[in-house]
Amino acid sequence: MTPLAQALLNPRRIALIGASADEQRLTARPQRYLRRHGFTGELFPVNPRAAEVLGERAYATLADIPGEIDFAYILLGTDNVEAQVVACAARKIPVACVLADGFAESGPEGAALQARVLAAAQASGLRLLGPNSMGIVNLNARTALTTNAALEAEELPAGRVALVSQSGSMMGALLSRGAARGLGFSHLIGTGNEADLTAGEIASLLLDDPDVDAVALFLEAIRAPEQMATAAAKARDLRKPIIALKLGRSPFGAELATSHTGALAGSDAAADAFFRAHGILRVSMLESLLELPLLVAGRRAPAHSHRAVSVMTTTGGGGALAVDALGVLGIEARKPDAKAGAKLSSGGFNSHARLLDLTLAGARPDRVMAALDALRAADDTDLVLAVIGSSAQFRPKDAVAGIVEGVKVPGKPVAAFLAPQAEASLRLLAEAGIAAFRTAESAADCINAYCAWQAPRDIPAPTPPTTTLPARPDEADARGLFATLGLDSPFAVMQDTPPEGIAYPVALKILSPDIAHKTEVGGVMLNIPDAAALAEAAAAMRARVAVAAPQAKITGLLVQTMRKGLAEAILGFRRDPEVGPVVLLGAGGVLSELHRDIALRLAPVDLETARDMIAEVRALKPLSGWRNLPKGDLDALAEAVVAASRLAALDQVAEAEINPLMVGRPGEGVTVADAWVVLR
Amino acid sequence: MTPLAQALLNPRRIALIGASADEQRLTARPQRYLRRHGFTGELFPVNPRAAEVLGERAYATLADIPGEIDFAYILLGTDNVEAQVVACAARKIPVACVLADGFAESGPEGAALQARVLAAAQASGLRLLGPNSMGIVNLNARTALTTNAALEAEELPAGRVALVSQSGSMMGALLSRGAARGLGFSHLIGTGNEADLTAGEIASLLLDDPDVDAVALFLEAIRAPEQMATAAAKARDLRKPIIALKLGRSPFGAELATSHTGALAGSDAAADAFFRAHGILRVSMLESLLELPLLVAGRRAPAHSHRAVSVMTTTGGGGALAVDALGVLGIEARKPDAKAGAKLSSGGFNSHARLLDLTLAGARPDRVMAALDALRAADDTDLVLAVIGSSAQFRPKDAVAGIVEGVKVPGKPVAAFLAPQAEASLRLLAEAGIAAFRTAESAADCINAYCAWQAPRDIPAPTPPTTTLPARPDEADARGLFATLGLDSPFAVMQDTPPEGIAYPVALKILSPDIAHKTEVGGVMLNIPDAAALAEAAAAMRARVAVAAPQAKITGLLVQTMRKGLAEAILGFRRDPEVGPVVLLGAGGVLSELHRDIALRLAPVDLETARDMIAEVRALKPLSGWRNLPKGDLDALAEAVVAASRLAALDQVAEAEINPLMVGRPGEGVTVADAWVVLR
Repeated sequence: MTPLAQALLNPRRIALIGASADEQRLTARPQRYLRRHGFTGELFPVNPRAAEVLGERAYATLADIPGEIDFAYILLGTDNVEAQVVACAARKIPVACVLADGFAESGPEGAALQARVLAAAQASGLRLLGPNSMGIVNLNARTALTTNAALEAEELPAGRVALVSQSGSMMGALLSRGAARGLGFSHLIGTGNEADLTAGEIASLLLDDPDVDAVALFLEAIRAPEQMATAAAKARDLRKPIIALKLGRSPFGAELATSHTGALAGSDAAADAFFRAHGILRVSMLESLLELPLLVAGRRAPAHSHRAVSVMTTTGGGGALAVDALGVLGIEARKPDAKAGAKLSSGGFNSHARLLDLTLAGARPDRVMAALDALRAADDTDLVLAVIGSSAQFRPKDAVAGIVEGVKVPGKPVAAFLAPQAEASLRLLAEAGIAAFRTAESAADCINAYCAWQAPRDIPAPTPPTTTLPARPDEADARGLFATLGLDSPFAVMQDTPPEGIAYPVALKILSPDIAHKTEVGGVMLNIPDAAALAEAAAAMRARVAVAAPQAKITGLLVQTMRKGLAEAILGFRRDPEVGPVVLLGAGGVLSELHRDIALRLAPVDLETARDMIAEVRALKPLSGWRNLPKGDLDALAEAVVAASRLAALDQVAEAEINPLMVGRPGEGVTVADAWVVLR
Repeated sequence: MTPLAQALLNPRRIALIGASADEQRLTARPQRYLRRHGFTGELFPVNPRAAEVLGERAYATLADIPGEIDFAYILLGTDNVEAQVVACAARKIPVACVLADGFAESGPEGAALQARVLAAAQASGLRLLGPNSMGIVNLNARTALTTNAALEAEELPAGRVALVSQSGSMMGALLSRGAARGLGFSHLIGTGNEADLTAGEIASLLLDDPDVDAVALFLEAIRAPEQMATAAAKARDLRKPIIALKLGRSPFGAELATSHTGALAGSDAAADAFFRAHGILRVSMLESLLELPLLVAGRRAPAHSHRAVSVMTTTGGGGALAVDALGVLGIEARKPDAKAGAKLSSGGFNSHARLLDLTLAGARPDRVMAALDALRAADDTDLVLAVIGSSAQFRPKDAVAGIVEGVKVPGKPVAAFLAPQAEASLRLLAEAGIAAFRTAESAADCINAYCAWQAPRDIPAPTPPTTTLPARPDEADARGLFATLGLDSPFAVMQDTPPEGIAYPVALKILSPDIAHKTEVGGVMLNIPDAAALAEAAAAMRARVAVAAPQAKITGLLVQTMRKGLAEAILGFRRDPEVGPVVLLGAGGVLSELHRDIALRLAPVDLETARDMIAEVRALKPLSGWRNLPKGDLDALAEAVVAASRLAALDQVAEAEINPLMVGRPGEGVTVADAWVVLR
């Protein structure tokens, strides 16, 4: 264990700065909870107005405490935080946690205060948790160093999942919901604003703990993507998966999440791309954070997901409910294949349907085991879901016995969905390390996350293209940039004389860094048949633009051969404020936006990922020959996506787009019809 | 109470045909459960092999039972059912319930058996529940006449919501989940295959019961839409809403639901249209069936939904979770408007944000009441959602006190979402009649159903158009049919001589009831400039088609003026196997199908509904002037939708479609470019 991990996750000598002697107060909670849950280390309440706090000796100032201190929890109001951080830094305390809010999330003044506090800490090597942090809980070490009211509970089960939450109150919600069904945590860490220590860095520390099998994250923002990526790589190596719930799936939620913690708003699609690229399982339901860990702990991402499950059930209605909820997310409850079917037949099961109905066999353990064994043998499903009916409520041991025994044989994952209210069965399954779902929706949410789970792929950083761009590039510069990346469509820049060697008919466009909408100033002409017409058109265009945009600096005229494609695409690159460079592919045209029909990934991407993106854009489906429509050059399109994604290596590029990119028939390649780039 | 309602819902003299003397057996359950839960009427076990069953006198046959019998539950296997139904009919028993499966859901043989059983019953006026029914539970009358294992519970709370479920096991799942949080039922009725008594007819009977405030339905299929519609109309009049969960939202689920109960598969969009038209609230999560009733009982559908809510919270993370889940379904957590804002200010609340954060005020009842009062005053939201944090777990009375007091003032609906595990708070809210949600997702599901809730609109049945159609109509017949409905686009039928008075250029198409794909046989020519060219084209087309489709009967050639529109739409009519006539509007073109971008409603529709449909099709949005794109003639399009929907009155029409329907600029109307009709 590193010294930081020791001090942050398992502190033995703790200062509570501002600990209240009034049991009812929030600031009395850490001391009460630490003692209630059996903390065995030393506590040092700091309170200048009391000699004793809740029966323990108090100190007037931090300086009065003898010996070393591992962790200081600053419980004072916003105005007093800076002085206490300075004091912690002076005493060389390794970790301080700040409870107060009113920092970066509250506006510019708070942001400035947060920056000062951070600077004071960093000057001495003090690491900060928060501000706006509810502290840390280490249940194995009985360390309830938190203001979270969920610790009022008399008893809390320890588990093997560590939770890191930017929201303090969600620590309590998850702790209490887990405890009610026998799902415990090893740690609960509230990271708040993450001025210094981020969820990613803390996740890395937690993964090193032998008592941790998985890390669950409740996120409002992704603060330090590179630290999160480091943690994700470690998670893959150790087979200790990271599972994230991130707010902001809706615009209203995104606005709230960022205003709540003062983070920059990234797009949800970019966050999705980030999690996917790094092999972090993303769930959308709170209870999935409790339910998914047992399904994935100790496992690798499936090499190839079938997006299909085998379902057995002792309740027709409950089984159908699960099948429907899965189907809504595009996951098929699949009939047994030949291999599973043969095993079912030899086991005396007649049904070879989408749902293996064991209602008559009920919960008889030998039958359940035989069914499990058969269904796990299927080659075309990702896992087996066992749905349990009323037996789960009234005969919990019998209800789960077959599953508990069956999963002892290694093989495909097995999980359970319990249709009735059945805490005892949920508890037994939890004890046996079997993932169980309380609702059909969380079953579908978790299984969807499992099916979408991919191991992080190492994509070598591309060599930055050698290019010199003016500060305000025009379309020709943008085309030149894409050409250096290998995405080259013939064009020429002319002043007055038509260029040599271009194929007609051509399009003519005004070039100016000052003109964003060329059409509006008469700066676009199409279908010009020959050189004479081109010379004439060029003169007329210059005259028109000189009237319409007299201030604009004209850098020339762009000439390009007219090309038609089978379809138009949008290919874009940008830097998401949260997760960094991303590449975006969509169908062209106005409707694409209405249908939100795009695919987005972290940049750079490899060819395989580019092909996945093409498959994801619904409006590009005809290009793969759907309904006997003419096929498009998808190889060239995939290469174009890879090329555009390599802009990630060119730090100076903020955003770039080709719109439209014309996709030709196989062998015809793709053509850049229009392009722009914006530098940082 | 009608005699049927009395016998079905509150039987006092019950025969249990096939009651087992072995307590462990399924067939012993009804007797055990009836006695355990305090049934005060008379029981008559029928069992030829015992003089006594579980301590009560048994009868060898039904005929041996003295006096009248209200309800016979046939617990015997499939093979013995027919004889017992005949016996029940002979004894003039009003209601018999069949437990066994193996009827219509099991294939043609079972379907034939079901038909015979039904005929035997109907001959004597005997009403049938099932087959495949788990019976009935009337908790107010302590009548647990069921095989459902959930009745093993020692005690069950009675409530004011009646449940009708086609799935027997879901009765138990809902009963147990409700009981755990203080939500009880008045009745639970298992309808199974619904050979005779359907969910709709039973819902009508339940609505008449003064102890019922709402009816919850768990459906695999809509069996008798007209009976369901009757129940829905009664529900509106009595302000006792019907809430439905119907399986089949996914294709896999739909396949399963119908194979499970032997119903015909309708489309899920048609089911949605049915529920919407009849003011039935549709939910997608099982727990929503428990949680939504208290929100809507005694209320009318909102006159105009804002699809917006006011949210107050004592937990930042929990509030954000709810806001995000609502946002995913397109429901905005809206900032207080001027009216609510003024009340908040005068109440000393500073925050006028998307989320009214009461974390500091905590659960102080006076503050909660003041906040509720202010937010309920907003004119632009549909309801107030109160999110409660840790106080719900540890101080339930305090946590809910402000809400319980606050809602005593009449006004906008109020509901609560509890972030932590908090059964006691859920129970207190249930006792106070306040809707509470256990998960952010069910909160969003229920609120979405509430916002989508519309009172059933009475649309007068259209007069059937006078028309004579041949048995196999060609395109000219289809065009003629649409013209009689008021959707007239000029066309002519020619044999050899070009028609008079048609505007050129024209399109020419072969007419034949035998040719579905005209293009494939060379039966379509476009842009014919004049009469001479038309005569020549007609001759050539006849020759081509004679070679390509020598067997086809040619009824003539269709001539129509070439017209372009701003956009193409698909306008369709069909009869859904579950819910009957529906009208469908979609954007034209191949991509429309890929994007599943359609709007569907029960036919006929009125203009207002037609306009809603147009607004629902994303690809038609440009026609409303979006992004300054040219507007389309949406009035004419809406009238076209209404016209097509009037096909509902023409019983002989099975399906009809206009594809594409060209939409012109305002005042230009719409043009039928192609049309077909299929008769039943």
